[in-house]
Amino acid sequence: MAQKPSIPKGTRDFSPEEMVKRNYIFDTIKQVFRLYGFQSIETPAMENLSTLMGKYGEEGDKLLFKILNSGDFLSKVNDSELAGKDSIKLTNQISEKGLRYDLTVPFARYVVQHRNEITFPFKRFQIQPVWRADRPQKGRYREFFQCDVDVIGSDSLLNEVELIQIVDEVFRRLNINVVLKLNNRKILSGIAETIGEIDRIVDITVAIDKLDKIGLEKVNAELGEKGVSTDAIAKLQPILKLSGTNEEKLDQIEQVIGGSETGRKGIDEVRTIFNYLKQLDLGTEVELDLTLARGLNYYTGAIFEVKAKDVEIGSITGGGRYDDLTGIFGLPDVSGVGISFGADRIYDVMTQLDLFPKDKVTTTRLMFVNFGPEEEKYCLPMLAKLRAAGVNAEIFPEAAKMKKQMNYANKKGIAFVAMAGENEIADGLFTLKNMETGGQQQFDSRQLLETLTK
Amino acid sequence: MAQKPSIPKGTRDFSPEEMVKRNYIFDTIKQVFRLYGFQSIETPAMENLSTLMGKYGEEGDKLLFKILNSGDFLSKVNDSELAGKDSIKLTNQISEKGLRYDLTVPFARYVVQHRNEITFPFKRFQIQPVWRADRPQKGRYREFFQCDVDVIGSDSLLNEVELIQIVDEVFRRLNINVVLKLNNRKILSGIAETIGEIDRIVDITVAIDKLDKIGLEKVNAELGEKGVSTDAIAKLQPILKLSGTNEEKLDQIEQVIGGSETGRKGIDEVRTIFNYLKQLDLGTEVELDLTLARGLNYYTGAIFEVKAKDVEIGSITGGGRYDDLTGIFGLPDVSGVGISFGADRIYDVMTQLDLFPKDKVTTTRLMFVNFGPEEEKYCLPMLAKLRAAGVNAEIFPEAAKMKKQMNYANKKGIAFVAMAGENEIADGLFTLKNMETGGQQQFDSRQLLETLTK
Repeated sequence: MAQKPSIPKGTRDFSPEEMVKRNYIFDTIKQVFRLYGFQSIETPAMENLSTLMGKYGEEGDKLLFKILNSGDFLSKVNDSELAGKDSIKLTNQISEKGLRYDLTVPFARYVVQHRNEITFPFKRFQIQPVWRADRPQKGRYREFFQCDVDVIGSDSLLNEVELIQIVDEVFRRLNINVVLKLNNRKILSGIAETIGEIDRIVDITVAIDKLDKIGLEKVNAELGEKGVSTDAIAKLQPILKLSGTNEEKLDQIEQVIGGSETGRKGIDEVRTIFNYLKQLDLGTEVELDLTLARGLNYYTGAIFEVKAKDVEIGSITGGGRYDDLTGIFGLPDVSGVGISFGADRIYDVMTQLDLFPKDKVTTTRLMFVNFGPEEEKYCLPMLAKLRAAGVNAEIFPEAAKMKKQMNYANKKGIAFVAMAGENEIADGLFTLKNMETGGQQQFDSRQLLETLTK
Repeated sequence: MAQKPSIPKGTRDFSPEEMVKRNYIFDTIKQVFRLYGFQSIETPAMENLSTLMGKYGEEGDKLLFKILNSGDFLSKVNDSELAGKDSIKLTNQISEKGLRYDLTVPFARYVVQHRNEITFPFKRFQIQPVWRADRPQKGRYREFFQCDVDVIGSDSLLNEVELIQIVDEVFRRLNINVVLKLNNRKILSGIAETIGEIDRIVDITVAIDKLDKIGLEKVNAELGEKGVSTDAIAKLQPILKLSGTNEEKLDQIEQVIGGSETGRKGIDEVRTIFNYLKQLDLGTEVELDLTLARGLNYYTGAIFEVKAKDVEIGSITGGGRYDDLTGIFGLPDVSGVGISFGADRIYDVMTQLDLFPKDKVTTTRLMFVNFGPEEEKYCLPMLAKLRAAGVNAEIFPEAAKMKKQMNYANKKGIAFVAMAGENEIADGLFTLKNMETGGQQQFDSRQLLETLTK
């Protein structure tokens, strides 16, 4: 019963080479998270559908992977229900669990469920796969990893500043040039309030975003078409013409929306963050960008987005402050702020720019060629010594043809190959071949150990 | 809409404290795997049901978590089919994917699917969760991690030896006393062949296993009841009375089953393994144990099982050699050997024996108390210096009450707390409090850095 094996579309296998690169990204991110006092948690792949449904909008509900109840799941479904052939209705009766769609909702659930064990402010990170029944396409998968870092239970803006520092440090270590764009939901609300179009936040940010492409005149025309009043459009002009440094922009915005309490609060928050950043030695450019409108139904303060400067790709990291994440689970008024690193896109950026370090020793460093039982016996104690010294090493498990063994070492990217035939054994030596240069040299065991551990 | 949040039964959240301990186990295992030249791969959580079904027996098929097809999954089901209310039949029509049940079948699928990219022998490890719709009970979960390590594409017994070395090294590093039990499927076949009861392998191993508990007489009686012939039982006596060292046992077995070619081959294999082990400096006791019958429908040579000596618990690691893992996917005659570490049981053993190291610095090492804007400003550059030196450090994000801040540091297990009030700032100093001893000392920034990095 030979089957042609394959995996579900939108999912991926990761080869050893890919794993080394992916782990390089994850390890870098984790190290920085820990440096800033964040601790990891993990939640189950499956959550109750009652936890997940209704949290991602109607479209999101459809994109949840739902798990069929075990056993005779149809026995409790009544016949008329079944005859109706309504997939959505039937789903509620034959499925109680789903795969997590993101790490945010499970985190909110975790915080509420474990609130008596958690010491707040809770600085947690979480790196796990999520699943979405999205249409797969280039760069979009049905199983992908999220790397989330959040502080919950503190409304200090120092948290925002530390997240910006984390972004700076992660991309400095990964060697990716980025720009961090910063916005504040309260400023957007202040603008909408000031021009008397409170429900138009999205239209306005879309308009600002199009400025570069279509010009001021067309943007104004579009706003009019969308029903924004002439008066409001007139008031909006200074915002659309915003220019200069972050500080200058903030001053211009203040002149327009200074009358709105919410708007002023937003400006204060952004100023405080910039003041902190001034004292820090940040390599990353931080830019106030009013077009940033991600997660608007969700974020209540700062909004972050990180873009790679040298590659055309969407944002590679993003996040913001939310004031009521846990409210849906019965714990209101807990403020938090967090960001999420997009591991897959970061991987793509690093591949395109060839940024993965070549000298990362996460694979075997030395392989002994296997010439037969006698030679094997001579090599095994040396192999044990090398491993005891922490050198990743192996011996080819059988006396296969030399070409096959060298090919194996080559394909696996092994740096050195050690050979010991009759002559070497007689002299108590090993011939060490550098697989990159092709150079060979003879060593005794002490020298071999030294060469490979230095 | 406050919901009381919970997670599906049989699944778990892992808190920061649990994550540190779990990662200690996983990191130890991974390090040893890499030391022996193994490389990691990962496969998707979801596999096509055609890959999974029929691989774990009828019972296993029932224990697979199946994923409901997306969209209007009922539209293609015909009405009469639906009216039949046969859950199993319907499942085939509304579900095409399932969660992986173990790492072995996905690995076999991986090897066949990627056979042109893989260089054999392929030494891979894989550490990922698996899911089973088993009835949850103490120590048995519906989501749990497996840590598998396999060599595929080589029938050299050196591979078996290296897996035994890996077991030895992992448990030496984790500080768990274990005994490794070794059996060989070919010896069991040889016994069954010799006594003329080829289909009775399981009955015979069960009988041998009961010897200690019920005695020789009752074991013989039970074998008779099960239909094993008097003649066969008589031939079996020397096997039942096996005693002495591993070598002595092998000699006794040889006298009984030496006439069976398969049996002799099994004895040779075990002898070869013991001869290798004699040359190695192994801390772990390796014991020939004919009662080991795990995965009999599957393993074709060596069978391994590892038990903790100081705790009453099932096997914590196990595996063996299989000659046709990839045959089901159309790639016959590829021999492999592998073992799987049971991370959850290892965790339980280490918890019971209190073996987790106390001094593992995977959490924050230093927290600055936050007394307000001025003090914060004084502390932030020092905090940056410490982090630049690789010290996991944080500052409490707001000027909360002293008691709250100290309580936070305490609960989080932070080793040191640094304080700088008016006096310290005037003198350019920090007061460092050791949270374990309660001792306090004043340092300038150079001394503080030295103290925390030594």
